Amino acid sequence: MKTTQNIDVTVDAIVFGYNKEIGVTVLLIKRKNDPFKGQWALPGGFVEPTESLELAVARELKEETGVKINYLEQLYTFGQPDRDPRKRIISVAYFGIVKSSQFKKLKAADDAEDAEWFKIKHLPALAFDHQKILKMAIDRLRSKMIYQPIGFELLDKKFPFSDLEHLYSTLLGRPIDRRNFRKKVMGLGILEELDEKAPSLGAGRPGNLFQFNKATYNQLVKEGMHFEI
Amino acid sequence: MKTTQNIDVTVDAIVFGYNKEIGVTVLLIKRKNDPFKGQWALPGGFVEPTESLELAVARELKEETGVKINYLEQLYTFGQPDRDPRKRIISVAYFGIVKSSQFKKLKAADDAEDAEWFKIKHLPALAFDHQKILKMAIDRLRSKMIYQPIGFELLDKKFPFSDLEHLYSTLLGRPIDRRNFRKKVMGLGILEELDEKAPSLGAGRPGNLFQFNKATYNQLVKEGMHFEI
Repeated sequence: MKTTQNIDVTVDAIVFGYNKEIGVTVLLIKRKNDPFKGQWALPGGFVEPTESLELAVARELKEETGVKINYLEQLYTFGQPDRDPRKRIISVAYFGIVKSSQFKKLKAADDAEDAEWFKIKHLPALAFDHQKILKMAIDRLRSKMIYQPIGFELLDKKFPFSDLEHLYSTLLGRPIDRRNFRKKVMGLGILEELDEKAPSLGAGRPGNLFQFNKATYNQLVKEGMHFEI
Repeated sequence: MKTTQNIDVTVDAIVFGYNKEIGVTVLLIKRKNDPFKGQWALPGGFVEPTESLELAVARELKEETGVKINYLEQLYTFGQPDRDPRKRIISVAYFGIVKSSQFKKLKAADDAEDAEWFKIKHLPALAFDHQKILKMAIDRLRSKMIYQPIGFELLDKKFPFSDLEHLYSTLLGRPIDRRNFRKKVMGLGILEELDEKAPSLGAGRPGNLFQFNKATYNQLVKEGMHFEI
């Protein structure tokens, strides 16, 4: 039994936000204390002696940003010996994606001087190895989209098809072939076309609204798929 | 900065072995010390103050079993507060699969009184939460087979098609539809049929030998696939 290990354990949260107008954002906090005082970082902190890792990450997120989420997924554990200048600290990172319009009111407190959604295309310099952690989370999110459907929690209940196109294109960070995309999505059997028109926003003819078929959607989440676009 | 956390960090290794005759095995050690003295467990141990998690798991594996592998993949971090009776210990688990014939000579030492390959269908009672960890590793291995090809490191360079069938069936833990499997595998474009017969073992007509096309195989590892059988 070693008693000289002297490693501390933290949790970090990568919360992606999606919003049709703004695109993909990530929730960051401005550090109130050293090291990296005044710099932006992922929300997170030390695990309390008797709480689970899942409770710790939900608690830190709420304390530092006011955002309450308890369905984050474990991403990876970062343990390079020199990743923190204070002492050896191993961090277990969790990630998830939410509709950012549900979390407009951020409330920085505790170790955070400020909390804000940042576009993932325009990020500030991040403290520690948080840029590396964030990059892994983005990669994981993009590869997850290939083998699981996405969108159920992120789009409105009824939406024009272009919203789904926009979601995929935004999360992937590149344009998609619209005709091919539509064909492939319809082939998955998770979308129902409604007999209801989307409100017309421009000169184009308004298309029908769509909704997810929750049963087939959930089945695909469970079984997996391969959706390359 | 908390100084009262008092959590230790360990690493655990889930090394699956594959062998055509024996099937799927997992490498376990018999614990030399309390707690769970004399009981079987996953190889692993405390992370040294200045080594990375990857080096720690490779070192512990070698120390306790004599097996030298340095390409294990991070599986998950287990952090329930009560998972170790001594104190709070968080364990980062790593997993991988090897051709077990390459590691016949096991050499138990350090904290291990014994080291042995166990068939995953006939496991002894395991120490700590190691049964839960092992179950997650088996699930991960099976879901990985759906979106990545497997077999390159596990089969001989040239093999009869039945070896690949056997590999999949054994790893999945259930029979597979042979005709359907053959059709699907050939459709992936990763196998080359050679103009060379397999040695005849029984009454049946010997079939041709096969080998993987490394380029297309690696491309599929990289790009992913959806291979449901």
